[in-house]
Amino acid sequence: MWWMGDAAVTDTTKRKRFTLAARPQGVPQQRDFALVEEALPVLQDGQFLIENRFASLDPAIRGWLDDAPSYMPPVPLGEAVRATTVGVVCDSRNPDFAVGQWVLGLNAIETHSLGVAGGFTGPIDLSLVPSPTHFLSVLGAVGMTAWFGLTEVGQPKAGETLLVSGAAGAVGSLVGQIGRSMGLKTIGIAGGPEKCRRLIERYRFDAAIDYRGKSVQQLEADIRAAAPGGVDVVFENVGGACLDAALMNLRHGSRVALCGLISEYNSVEKLGARNLWQLIVHSARIQGLLVRDYLPRFAEGAGEMAKLLSAGGLVFDEHVDVGIDNAFAAFMRLFEGSNDGKMILQL
Amino acid sequence: MWWMGDAAVTDTTKRKRFTLAARPQGVPQQRDFALVEEALPVLQDGQFLIENRFASLDPAIRGWLDDAPSYMPPVPLGEAVRATTVGVVCDSRNPDFAVGQWVLGLNAIETHSLGVAGGFTGPIDLSLVPSPTHFLSVLGAVGMTAWFGLTEVGQPKAGETLLVSGAAGAVGSLVGQIGRSMGLKTIGIAGGPEKCRRLIERYRFDAAIDYRGKSVQQLEADIRAAAPGGVDVVFENVGGACLDAALMNLRHGSRVALCGLISEYNSVEKLGARNLWQLIVHSARIQGLLVRDYLPRFAEGAGEMAKLLSAGGLVFDEHVDVGIDNAFAAFMRLFEGSNDGKMILQL
Repeated sequence: MWWMGDAAVTDTTKRKRFTLAARPQGVPQQRDFALVEEALPVLQDGQFLIENRFASLDPAIRGWLDDAPSYMPPVPLGEAVRATTVGVVCDSRNPDFAVGQWVLGLNAIETHSLGVAGGFTGPIDLSLVPSPTHFLSVLGAVGMTAWFGLTEVGQPKAGETLLVSGAAGAVGSLVGQIGRSMGLKTIGIAGGPEKCRRLIERYRFDAAIDYRGKSVQQLEADIRAAAPGGVDVVFENVGGACLDAALMNLRHGSRVALCGLISEYNSVEKLGARNLWQLIVHSARIQGLLVRDYLPRFAEGAGEMAKLLSAGGLVFDEHVDVGIDNAFAAFMRLFEGSNDGKMILQL
Repeated sequence: MWWMGDAAVTDTTKRKRFTLAARPQGVPQQRDFALVEEALPVLQDGQFLIENRFASLDPAIRGWLDDAPSYMPPVPLGEAVRATTVGVVCDSRNPDFAVGQWVLGLNAIETHSLGVAGGFTGPIDLSLVPSPTHFLSVLGAVGMTAWFGLTEVGQPKAGETLLVSGAAGAVGSLVGQIGRSMGLKTIGIAGGPEKCRRLIERYRFDAAIDYRGKSVQQLEADIRAAAPGGVDVVFENVGGACLDAALMNLRHGSRVALCGLISEYNSVEKLGARNLWQLIVHSARIQGLLVRDYLPRFAEGAGEMAKLLSAGGLVFDEHVDVGIDNAFAAFMRLFEGSNDGKMILQL
């Protein structure tokens, strides 16, 4: 299998690391990072060495580069850039991690990572999926965001109606398909006719709404036409007009899972949500979703997603760039929008 | 006792009713209503007659006067204006309602209401409280909004911090006191130094914040100064700057019970909530509160409030106007703000 080969290190006593050279001001630049080669760490008792095969490149990484208080400490200057990786244990002084074991963990963009006892690394079962990259997409944070966001925050029941904004994205497309598998009617919102066609044909949404060029009132009417009785669950990735239009279509006791507000991240003057009064009228709620809260349940969620996968009910897209030398260009695809699917770097 | 006398009907075969003559356009006018005297209804099997002693005058009544879809049908033209009342059964062809029984129900502003089997009328136990008016305030919808809003929507735990906006109002002042009785640290927001003094001295909040003339950033800093570790529960009556400032002070897993957005009801250009992203950062939620959802549990809630009352841990204010002839003027106090406490009409 193509992914079973050795990682691209010429000198087997060294590792390559993609490190943070300076804190980016605004859009990250090549000069903010460095590629360094250094000796492999010497293992202490309880430690093990992971030969990373794939790193997940996520928008969240951008936040970790800033020296600002967040839910994670910032990446220290000179250290490798933090990322979730999939790899193989290649040396071990920890009885729980045998050499040859495949693992998934919060490590860094580097050919080898040091595993420590009690860290965020756990074994994975490759027999669950056709490719280990799936542990960084459908079975990784993206898949877990979709799974726990919909099932735990959205609390859907069969027969209900689900509205997803950003529905053509990595998370949104999975949310629609999970919803469909649970017996929900699914309505997706996306930008442009091409994405809307994809919602119906590839991700099998029951209805697709193009938000481009529409006012809140027009979007509100479009949602009402697709769901005349209102919506029970909203999976919100976008905010702004999408959220306000969704709020005008809530049913009694409905739930809005707030995953993202991407329409507001780069806007100077935030619009704000003006229809919150609908939460009172319908005894409804908006609940924020931080997938990190579900870390202890990732194995359970990954098992559920693997079931859906093997049942053939799930399509998704991965964009794999190759080589740690290309780490910067691959990372920047996220902000240029030039990736077709979940962005992954093969190391 | 002063409230045990007969209702003010001269002809005992007739009743007086405060009826809707025309649908108000904007601010209600005297001409939109009529006082009519008519023969008492003749009871059918299963029916009973209630001699009303007190009617609760609430802002919600204004909504029921419009011919617009809502959670209740509009009051029909020519019918008595719907209101919650406390009264005594004075005639009965229903074995569950004996003559002399005190009852609470959704009836109308009229001296006598017709009770029907399976209607929204139930017996009340006057031994629980010093005055039957309490069933329209602290044991009525106001009290139930405070009780179920805080306990069920807010889900507080002892030792947590509670932030209440509109804290000097009928609901807000009760929420603060219930919170205090549950072992919460309580912070109230109100308008002006007089109300803020009342929060501390009368309603025993731990801290009071005057919102007048303050920006979101100033309010945010004031809340942070009062709750440096953040707030766990927000009871929101106001919206706008109060809500945005509260959102910037949420703790992980905190709950915002959304009871009202009174700052936005009469504003042409709504500000909107611009800090919803804090819900994601803190896995927090905003949940709308419609007290009607808890109707089946009002007896339970009233029992809890009665316990607090008898323990001496609750102060609250009622404003009782006397006489059905004064119904219009008494109702309009709600919009003029000339009432000192929960507005009640003695019939």
